[in-house]
Amino acid sequence: MGETQRKILQVLEGKTLTPPPLWLMRQAGRYLPEYRATRAKAGSFLDLCYSPEHAVEVTLQPIRRYGFDAAILFSDILVIPDALKRNVRFTEGHGPEMDPIDEAGIRALSPDGVPDHLSPVFETVRRLREALPLETTLLGFCGAPWTVATYMIAGHGTSDQAPARLFAYRHRKAFDHLLAFLAEVSADYLIRQIDAGADAVQIFDSWAGVLGEEEFSAFAEAPVRRMIDIVKTARPKAKVIAFAKGAGILLKNYRHNTGADAIGLDWSVPLSFARDLQKDGPVQGNLDPMRVVAGGEALEHGVARVLEALGHGPLIFNLGHGITPQADPDNVSRLVEQVRRFRG
Amino acid sequence: MGETQRKILQVLEGKTLTPPPLWLMRQAGRYLPEYRATRAKAGSFLDLCYSPEHAVEVTLQPIRRYGFDAAILFSDILVIPDALKRNVRFTEGHGPEMDPIDEAGIRALSPDGVPDHLSPVFETVRRLREALPLETTLLGFCGAPWTVATYMIAGHGTSDQAPARLFAYRHRKAFDHLLAFLAEVSADYLIRQIDAGADAVQIFDSWAGVLGEEEFSAFAEAPVRRMIDIVKTARPKAKVIAFAKGAGILLKNYRHNTGADAIGLDWSVPLSFARDLQKDGPVQGNLDPMRVVAGGEALEHGVARVLEALGHGPLIFNLGHGITPQADPDNVSRLVEQVRRFRG
Repeated sequence: MGETQRKILQVLEGKTLTPPPLWLMRQAGRYLPEYRATRAKAGSFLDLCYSPEHAVEVTLQPIRRYGFDAAILFSDILVIPDALKRNVRFTEGHGPEMDPIDEAGIRALSPDGVPDHLSPVFETVRRLREALPLETTLLGFCGAPWTVATYMIAGHGTSDQAPARLFAYRHRKAFDHLLAFLAEVSADYLIRQIDAGADAVQIFDSWAGVLGEEEFSAFAEAPVRRMIDIVKTARPKAKVIAFAKGAGILLKNYRHNTGADAIGLDWSVPLSFARDLQKDGPVQGNLDPMRVVAGGEALEHGVARVLEALGHGPLIFNLGHGITPQADPDNVSRLVEQVRRFRG
Repeated sequence: MGETQRKILQVLEGKTLTPPPLWLMRQAGRYLPEYRATRAKAGSFLDLCYSPEHAVEVTLQPIRRYGFDAAILFSDILVIPDALKRNVRFTEGHGPEMDPIDEAGIRALSPDGVPDHLSPVFETVRRLREALPLETTLLGFCGAPWTVATYMIAGHGTSDQAPARLFAYRHRKAFDHLLAFLAEVSADYLIRQIDAGADAVQIFDSWAGVLGEEEFSAFAEAPVRRMIDIVKTARPKAKVIAFAKGAGILLKNYRHNTGADAIGLDWSVPLSFARDLQKDGPVQGNLDPMRVVAGGEALEHGVARVLEALGHGPLIFNLGHGITPQADPDNVSRLVEQVRRFRG
């Protein structure tokens, strides 16, 4: 059985593998010349997300080059608001934009047509599972309700997502409704990715770090718990990685409070704290992506420290955030070699 | 003796006052119509910082309106790079910009002329101490070396100060030199503020949250420790508040590792953790500024929670980040009344 050889699934079940399996967030991305070439052919960024042909190609590119242990579906967390007809635009040099939503807009949200709109994504997942080596884990993903809501409310990204925090304070009922709605729609989206062939899924809560303690519980943890409950009730064997970027000390109970199998760690998470978190189960992370840009001693030292601190427990080696366009592909080769040399 | 009645100084000495004294970060700011009027007269933002007449006026405005327990010198953390001839510009709607510095630029940095360039600031402090009520604490401030360095290297603000992280990985020696240089210049700047009449000073490390564990120790804690050592050696009675925004769990040893008398807490710091930090000494914070914009129940609930959690120990009530231009001045009145009603 090829599936039982999928190392990342073994770690998600709690096993310690030496060396740890690895993949990199945003591994299919602009640092690769072959990605840039496909991207140029595809049209807009959303066209690329919705083209099974091109999305499969860019997802496979880093697997061919580096043999990562996981491929992650090429897509974007904002395909959900796009499927909800929020007029999502990706303009070069601008960051994503969409029509900001208000209370009436939230009341009018409907899940009708969402799976149809997202059907090219499921087709991409199906083709990927066929094309990938048997031993490669295929990850699906989506954004967490809080993070997706921050963009839907502001209509764009901001430095601290103040518009969504303010909206939540002012219109708590509507905001709770939005989060609950997004949790349902996103859980359904993940189940369909799993049914199409995803081995496991990751939930990205990229803006969890701007929340106070009470709000983290209500806006970040509770909706992710709801999503994981829905997914695991429908597909009991499904494995979920939850990544709450910037959550800091609030990560302490994040696994327990959400029901995630593994938790992602950003590069600001101290390794001593990360070790404590690993006592409760698998962790994923957490090299500073800037070390991959810097290369040399900074890269080697950073990789060594993560391996020393976390390599003796269940670890999926990864970055603490997405790899950036400036990263040198040769530095990625060095990173992969160093991780694969680790003998504990 | 008026000075002994300065409540914030008493808290900085470790006393618990009921109700706690309060001030708000960026309390002299665009949410006040009288600020906007003075700002319009002053010319550029830097002109305002360097005009004792106008800077005194805007510093006093929130004291007149709300009777805060501290006035904080109106200035900006980027007056240091400005004094270092980095061509600092504040363009409306753009955020601050300056000429990015490289290794050669770092080697060429000189403290010559810095105190002269900043002499209007010291004049502002002198006039403020004369104009303020005796019981009002006068706070001076500056940026922490890491935070100031992030702007000097990138030439502007970024979402995660990746340029400075990368520079530090690539050119560690030059970066260490820059931090050490900024620590010396900034400590001298604080001593001159104290000599001009500042009762205490705050060091703002607004970008501490983007650092990994080792870098937090080397880039955030060590230079701030150096600054506080210099200040306290020269002026043994000086009190220092250190505010490392976003530092999360790394705040645990921040007071001990820097020698700060009090530590500032951003709004993401969980109150349970804040209570632990308060066992070691005074804390300052940490209401989400968006609650002041929202007003009503969200404001009242937030203020009540901070008071319940931290009001029984040494606390300087404050926001977890600067008050924003959208804040309603009447909400600030409500906040002040609620804090002043607190009886423990």
